[in-house]
Amino acid sequence: MPARTKANIKVVGAGLLGSSIGLGLGALGVKVGLADISSSTLDLAVDYGAGEKFSQGQSPEPDLVVVAVPPAMTASVVLEQLQLHPNALITDVASVKHQILEDVQEDSPEAARYLGSHPMAGRERGGPSAARADLFNGRPWIITPTPENTAEQIGIIEALALDLGAVPVISDSASHDRAVALVSHLPQLVSSITAARLSSAVPEDISLAGQGLRDVTRLASSDSDLWLQIVTANAGEITGPLSEVAKDIQNLVDALENLGRSGSRRTIAGVLAAGQEGVARIPGKHGTSSKFKNLTVLIPDTPGELARLLTEIGSADINLEDLRLEHSPSAQVGLAEISVKPDAHERLLALLAENGWRISG
Amino acid sequence: MPARTKANIKVVGAGLLGSSIGLGLGALGVKVGLADISSSTLDLAVDYGAGEKFSQGQSPEPDLVVVAVPPAMTASVVLEQLQLHPNALITDVASVKHQILEDVQEDSPEAARYLGSHPMAGRERGGPSAARADLFNGRPWIITPTPENTAEQIGIIEALALDLGAVPVISDSASHDRAVALVSHLPQLVSSITAARLSSAVPEDISLAGQGLRDVTRLASSDSDLWLQIVTANAGEITGPLSEVAKDIQNLVDALENLGRSGSRRTIAGVLAAGQEGVARIPGKHGTSSKFKNLTVLIPDTPGELARLLTEIGSADINLEDLRLEHSPSAQVGLAEISVKPDAHERLLALLAENGWRISG
Repeated sequence: MPARTKANIKVVGAGLLGSSIGLGLGALGVKVGLADISSSTLDLAVDYGAGEKFSQGQSPEPDLVVVAVPPAMTASVVLEQLQLHPNALITDVASVKHQILEDVQEDSPEAARYLGSHPMAGRERGGPSAARADLFNGRPWIITPTPENTAEQIGIIEALALDLGAVPVISDSASHDRAVALVSHLPQLVSSITAARLSSAVPEDISLAGQGLRDVTRLASSDSDLWLQIVTANAGEITGPLSEVAKDIQNLVDALENLGRSGSRRTIAGVLAAGQEGVARIPGKHGTSSKFKNLTVLIPDTPGELARLLTEIGSADINLEDLRLEHSPSAQVGLAEISVKPDAHERLLALLAENGWRISG
Repeated sequence: MPARTKANIKVVGAGLLGSSIGLGLGALGVKVGLADISSSTLDLAVDYGAGEKFSQGQSPEPDLVVVAVPPAMTASVVLEQLQLHPNALITDVASVKHQILEDVQEDSPEAARYLGSHPMAGRERGGPSAARADLFNGRPWIITPTPENTAEQIGIIEALALDLGAVPVISDSASHDRAVALVSHLPQLVSSITAARLSSAVPEDISLAGQGLRDVTRLASSDSDLWLQIVTANAGEITGPLSEVAKDIQNLVDALENLGRSGSRRTIAGVLAAGQEGVARIPGKHGTSSKFKNLTVLIPDTPGELARLLTEIGSADINLEDLRLEHSPSAQVGLAEISVKPDAHERLLALLAENGWRISG
């Protein structure tokens, strides 16, 4: 497929996101000029094929500059690029948008040439060596225009997102920040704080950890430098939901400490019910347990067994909507939790029974 | 394999756990006498093959009684069974242990015939129709003896656990309750409270939910009646860690509201670092990201593709340590995150490249 992107592109910041953009566009035949404050990072990115070194005056003057530097540096680099390239559209990929926009608007008369965006993609590792041409595949790429931005500018960023396999979503910087505070930053902080309780626990207690604790604490292993920048840049939107969580916990502690008091049990039941209501509102494959039927199959912990199961399911033309593999501690079996559309559930049950698979709880 | 359990067994409570015990023992040829306060539940459990109706005077006198009723009713049913069967060992399967033990010791001179236990297994659905013979397969089954219990008594419950495929773990009731408060009850409440924030959010915000939010809030869909009983029965152990979480959140809110103040950024960084340290202490396949190498493969969203991938991996004799399938919103691909032992990583990469699989970020 030919690239939608026709612009001369410069990417500033050759880390994970910048190099992935370079690799993805490169795969479509679009050449990218790369810049980075660190010459070793830049050399590595060029070696990985993420683009060519951008050289002011020698490289073609860019029509589009993508600023892919850490959130705390983004506004100043955007301002610099607005000055450096007086005819270019400047975008960025930081995961917080409103403060950057305000900084740019405050310090530049050319802010209408800035159009912020946020591809919701990442990896645990960073740097050009972790970059992938399809890092953005299937991910939302949020674009946050102001009334000053033109439809043409929006179209240029949409084309970039689509070329990289992402799904463009139009929002505004304030709504974006409110949304990510709720769906991304709050769970990150809650996960870190819950996991922090384990740092002083005795190993015997931690050894009883099941899938629930693992799920809740998985995010806690994320890059802490990056997250420090993200949460400080979005502090204004995070404190609200975080304070509500703290209030709920305080009410819960109070109720648990005074179980004899009238209303205490209702407080606890209310928290549990509100949680059920909230999780049911998450759309898509994982969130709505009612949308798909789940069942768990016991898998012997030897090579090829899971493949055999999935081959049989595929041969019967049943599509897996979701699959999670879980190993129990000390056990020689794994548990595969399989989700299918309700109309495929009976067929799947029959197939599994016929082929002798053990279905577990 | 012949059953280790030689005792005549009575199970009181024919719900998910009681019926699963009946089914599991029945599969080994051990007959179980079933009792339940609800005759319709009992009839259903017998229909499902979980055992025969226990009839006082007619059924053989039990050597072992397993009380599998909701946590709030457990102590009183244990006391009742101690009286009813003066020569039997009585155990239970409630997920909180210390308060039940205290209630039994306070109200019965025969408390030395009670030996509490807790199989760490469950399902989202309840009742006899959700029961499975292998519900306990590979799960820890915690046994909490007092100094009054004998080695023979402990051996009987260990045999029961082993017959059902579980892994017996010896603890004491106070340590058990402290451990489950941390690894099970705290994550449940944190998950519910985080999910509760979604109940009043606008759909556009929730639509940006990614895997992180889904992981943190998954537990929030659990049975709220059961969890109300569990957390009230273990209130004394839960309030400690829960108060620490509340304190951390308050400190975090305070730091985020006063970013200019000296030390605020250090507070936030400290929470993130403590979370990293805590999650690294979780043992086993999911917890220690350093123990396995992970990579993510793009899977076309059509039947059979994942099976083809896993067949190829199995044929190369590479064992999957973990596998997670994730669908991106609106995308026609799934992302399979695969974990393998470090020594298999290079071979896997070569295999995937050779067979044309796309590796993603």
